[in-house]
Amino acid sequence: MESSQSTLILTQDELKKIAAYKAVEFVESDTVLGLGTGSTACYAVARIGELLQQGKLKNIVGIPTSKKTHEQAVSVGIPLSDLDNYPVLDLAIDGADEVDPDLNLVKGRGGCLLREKMVEGASKKFVVIVDETKLVKHLGGSGLAMPVEVVPFCWKYTLERLQKMFVHAGCVAKLRIISENGEPFVTDNGNYIIDLYLEKEIGDLRVASDEILRLAGVAEHGICLDMATTLIVAGELGVTIKNK
Amino acid sequence: MESSQSTLILTQDELKKIAAYKAVEFVESDTVLGLGTGSTACYAVARIGELLQQGKLKNIVGIPTSKKTHEQAVSVGIPLSDLDNYPVLDLAIDGADEVDPDLNLVKGRGGCLLREKMVEGASKKFVVIVDETKLVKHLGGSGLAMPVEVVPFCWKYTLERLQKMFVHAGCVAKLRIISENGEPFVTDNGNYIIDLYLEKEIGDLRVASDEILRLAGVAEHGICLDMATTLIVAGELGVTIKNK
Repeated sequence: MESSQSTLILTQDELKKIAAYKAVEFVESDTVLGLGTGSTACYAVARIGELLQQGKLKNIVGIPTSKKTHEQAVSVGIPLSDLDNYPVLDLAIDGADEVDPDLNLVKGRGGCLLREKMVEGASKKFVVIVDETKLVKHLGGSGLAMPVEVVPFCWKYTLERLQKMFVHAGCVAKLRIISENGEPFVTDNGNYIIDLYLEKEIGDLRVASDEILRLAGVAEHGICLDMATTLIVAGELGVTIKNK
Repeated sequence: MESSQSTLILTQDELKKIAAYKAVEFVESDTVLGLGTGSTACYAVARIGELLQQGKLKNIVGIPTSKKTHEQAVSVGIPLSDLDNYPVLDLAIDGADEVDPDLNLVKGRGGCLLREKMVEGASKKFVVIVDETKLVKHLGGSGLAMPVEVVPFCWKYTLERLQKMFVHAGCVAKLRIISENGEPFVTDNGNYIIDLYLEKEIGDLRVASDEILRLAGVAEHGICLDMATTLIVAGELGVTIKNK
């Protein structure tokens, strides 16, 4: 679908930036903010730093969702703390890998799902920012990975169990590998990631979520239900905001 | 309750040994065995080693549930492997911290709950061995800890969330500390343990189990439902065997 008014083709990166800047309009002074991880969230963190610098935002405490975001936030001058000190956040902003029509998400292709879910689950409002390529009819529908964080101990066994669990959805499970050195990718928590590739719908998401979590060896998965309160989508035709 | 025939008072350690030896009677040659961890399971591992030495058992593959059990099994000459190579076990033998009338268990006061649940969940039969002090009317009923394994990241936040989750049961949550040095106890998986102390029943165990697992930051908990197939209890009046 193309707009007849559109004379400019925006890149995916430009769309990510538009969504991120829109989300930062929701940020108020004197609040505690969850800072997401990934290429889209990165623009939001940079923008918050800019507004603090300009004095347009004041007295912000950021709670980063990864070591990487921690470093970026420090570099742009956002004062930071953690969940231990701020167990309730006012607002969190983060990207997502997939968003379905009910604002359920897949997160964690960047490998930070556990900390992201902890921080964003502690937030009163959670604004998800994506470009339109992230919208799916059902989770797993993009054909890209649905990540599961597992303890390294007997990960092959856990991989087999996960693949069997979703055999009805044509699941293929793969250990995430760092392409540069062929070593397993290790999360901030010292765990591995098993990526599930699904051919068909996995069925009831709540059932699937609980079933994965019940598997001893699984620390967390990338399916986020009932977490997002607002979705901001940037597309060729402009920005759409959807509230849950 | 005391038996009038009983002239000998057995110590708790002797009862543990009796239960363990009874369980080892279930072990057959040419099988894959899950080897538990803790003071009771320890007697079973030693006994299996003895029978292998005597030639009364042959061709056993042991799957240890902890680094500690791995060492003990090596020292008594049990050939070992892991879940990656043997995803289905014939029999697992382990102790438990609490057992309710439906053979639901609390495990993990020794800190090995995650690996124990992985190994014992992969076993066709799981024989639980306890002395009679471990029997409770409902899980948590002993007043001792119900352990939850959590990622170290923002553990205080996770502790608060767990305590609030079971506020109706008068829950007090405490980080497990090594008494010798005051440092947090670290599991074989690099995680911490939060011990829940409950004043009252926590209610439906299945609901409680799922609720704990849904908390991002939790890797596993010590509640084991539908895992034990046989319970062996050693008491002053003898040994009782109960099948599920």
